[in-house]
Amino acid sequence: MSKKVVLTGDRPTGKLHLGHYVGSLRSRLEMQDSDDYEMFVMIADEQALADNARNPEKVRGSLLEVAMDYLAVGLNPDKTTIFVQSQIPALYELTFHYMGFINHGRLSRIPTLKDDIREKGFEKELPMSWFTFPVSQCADITAFGAHLVPVGADQLPVIELDREIVRAFNQQYGQILVEPEGLAPSGIAQRLPGIHGPNDKMSKSLNNGIYLSDSSAVVKEKVMQMYTDPDHVKVEDAGKIKGNVVFIYLDVFAPDGPKVAAMKKQYQQGGLGDVAVKKYLIEVLENLLNPIRARRAEFEKNPEQVRDILRAGSLKANQVANQTLAKVRAAIGLNYFG
Amino acid sequence: MSKKVVLTGDRPTGKLHLGHYVGSLRSRLEMQDSDDYEMFVMIADEQALADNARNPEKVRGSLLEVAMDYLAVGLNPDKTTIFVQSQIPALYELTFHYMGFINHGRLSRIPTLKDDIREKGFEKELPMSWFTFPVSQCADITAFGAHLVPVGADQLPVIELDREIVRAFNQQYGQILVEPEGLAPSGIAQRLPGIHGPNDKMSKSLNNGIYLSDSSAVVKEKVMQMYTDPDHVKVEDAGKIKGNVVFIYLDVFAPDGPKVAAMKKQYQQGGLGDVAVKKYLIEVLENLLNPIRARRAEFEKNPEQVRDILRAGSLKANQVANQTLAKVRAAIGLNYFG
Repeated sequence: MSKKVVLTGDRPTGKLHLGHYVGSLRSRLEMQDSDDYEMFVMIADEQALADNARNPEKVRGSLLEVAMDYLAVGLNPDKTTIFVQSQIPALYELTFHYMGFINHGRLSRIPTLKDDIREKGFEKELPMSWFTFPVSQCADITAFGAHLVPVGADQLPVIELDREIVRAFNQQYGQILVEPEGLAPSGIAQRLPGIHGPNDKMSKSLNNGIYLSDSSAVVKEKVMQMYTDPDHVKVEDAGKIKGNVVFIYLDVFAPDGPKVAAMKKQYQQGGLGDVAVKKYLIEVLENLLNPIRARRAEFEKNPEQVRDILRAGSLKANQVANQTLAKVRAAIGLNYFG
Repeated sequence: MSKKVVLTGDRPTGKLHLGHYVGSLRSRLEMQDSDDYEMFVMIADEQALADNARNPEKVRGSLLEVAMDYLAVGLNPDKTTIFVQSQIPALYELTFHYMGFINHGRLSRIPTLKDDIREKGFEKELPMSWFTFPVSQCADITAFGAHLVPVGADQLPVIELDREIVRAFNQQYGQILVEPEGLAPSGIAQRLPGIHGPNDKMSKSLNNGIYLSDSSAVVKEKVMQMYTDPDHVKVEDAGKIKGNVVFIYLDVFAPDGPKVAAMKKQYQQGGLGDVAVKKYLIEVLENLLNPIRARRAEFEKNPEQVRDILRAGSLKANQVANQTLAKVRAAIGLNYFG
């Protein structure tokens, strides 16, 4: 059986945090170790610029950080192609060609757009780069012939739109493009709240997430600030588990399930203080983060090596994307000069 | 004084006709012979595909025809860079980058859009390629640092929008792009009606235009069908000049102004038949078209030479466009790898 091609990645708008780890990085490590997948991981700097055209420093400054987070967490450039979106010229051109195969109305009605507009303050001025980004995403996906695109459930409509572009193009020109499938979050992918409550959405400006590159001191500080049960004041009080962020994190990260179950029971009965639970979570997170930090420290000493890895990955990505582009250009009939 | 860079061109959707000659080709020949201008003439195949994504054969089939019309009419590849839009990859990428500097609302409100939608039957389905083409046009213009863009008066709002993109980009990144000016039709540029009446708009499907490549027999046939004064039945009748297409053409093309004035006088008084006037117009047009036909016949014998000219022109255009792209990429900060 041939391998399924997977395209995934992140917008470089800051360092990666535990939310990324449980939401996608962990699944990628699994896929990397499986013989069933060939994985392309894209640092989507152009997509980050789509809503940061006036703030390019943020994107530029995050590129190597994201790359170091990838490598620190265990993405292996020998197995996985890690590349930078803006270094693949074919993607610009494919985006352009696909514009002929999608209508303005269809893009306007994409369900995520209204939320984006509200969340990003685009009510008055919606940049065309944001409006057209689903088309650009179709270029990213099809350039690598991706069969599978891991996305959050809210992004499945974008994949559906991309599938429509692919079908319209193939209907005109034959079976040139691979029709992708959105891969809904797997069992191990989870959405992790920020430290301030079960519905706290992680955001760089709120500093409410624990970053893969946070020091031990910072992790300790953030866990100690973590929302628990506000009515659980004294150790002997009975506490609530539901909505208790510390237990949410323990459920996700603690390897010792029975121990967590026992702690929950005691916490609910009374007799287990927040500090004790938090100390255990700190221990659990330190065990997870220590090897990541150690690898990151090595790469931080040698950013040129990280750049080399991105350069080599982008070179490989270019080879694949250029093959797709050549097929697309031949299909449209743009090779006038042989 | 340094030369003004001019960008102009045509969509390859059919052979060129006398309307193109008086509307733009004639001005281009003047600019070509002037020391004040450096001219880039683009065969805009991608812009033609923007509303012909499902009909690419039409565009492909017209490319060499338009090129041969250019060369036949006297555009000289030693003086003027004649190139093909789709052969300049920088244009795709510049289009992409400029999307961050224009808002969806601004593009939606461009005055030409409503007319385009009605004329092209886009009421139900407006292709994104058409919606975004003003951005693509901004790439075409700025890639070559064009100061002047000859356009019809109806297209001036598109140039105004392109100027806004340039200003927004330059405001963010410094004086990288040249802000273009729309060049309204010059004194010698005119809008020529089709043969069926003074308000007849030339259209390939109506076959109501005289093509630069039409044979003598076809020119004769078309002139003989030309709308004159429907009340001018007998030679001795007094005839009207206003709205009389034959005289409109004579005003534009006849080199002997006094002769035309005398004919008009006699026609209005009565005593000059349509056939006599038409015969004179045929003579005038044959004098114009004969050398064009002769040059075209040479190029038709050797299409590979025409392809070589386009290839060389596209090579030169690429050199210029790539310089602009390099500046744009450096400004955005995409040269991570040096």
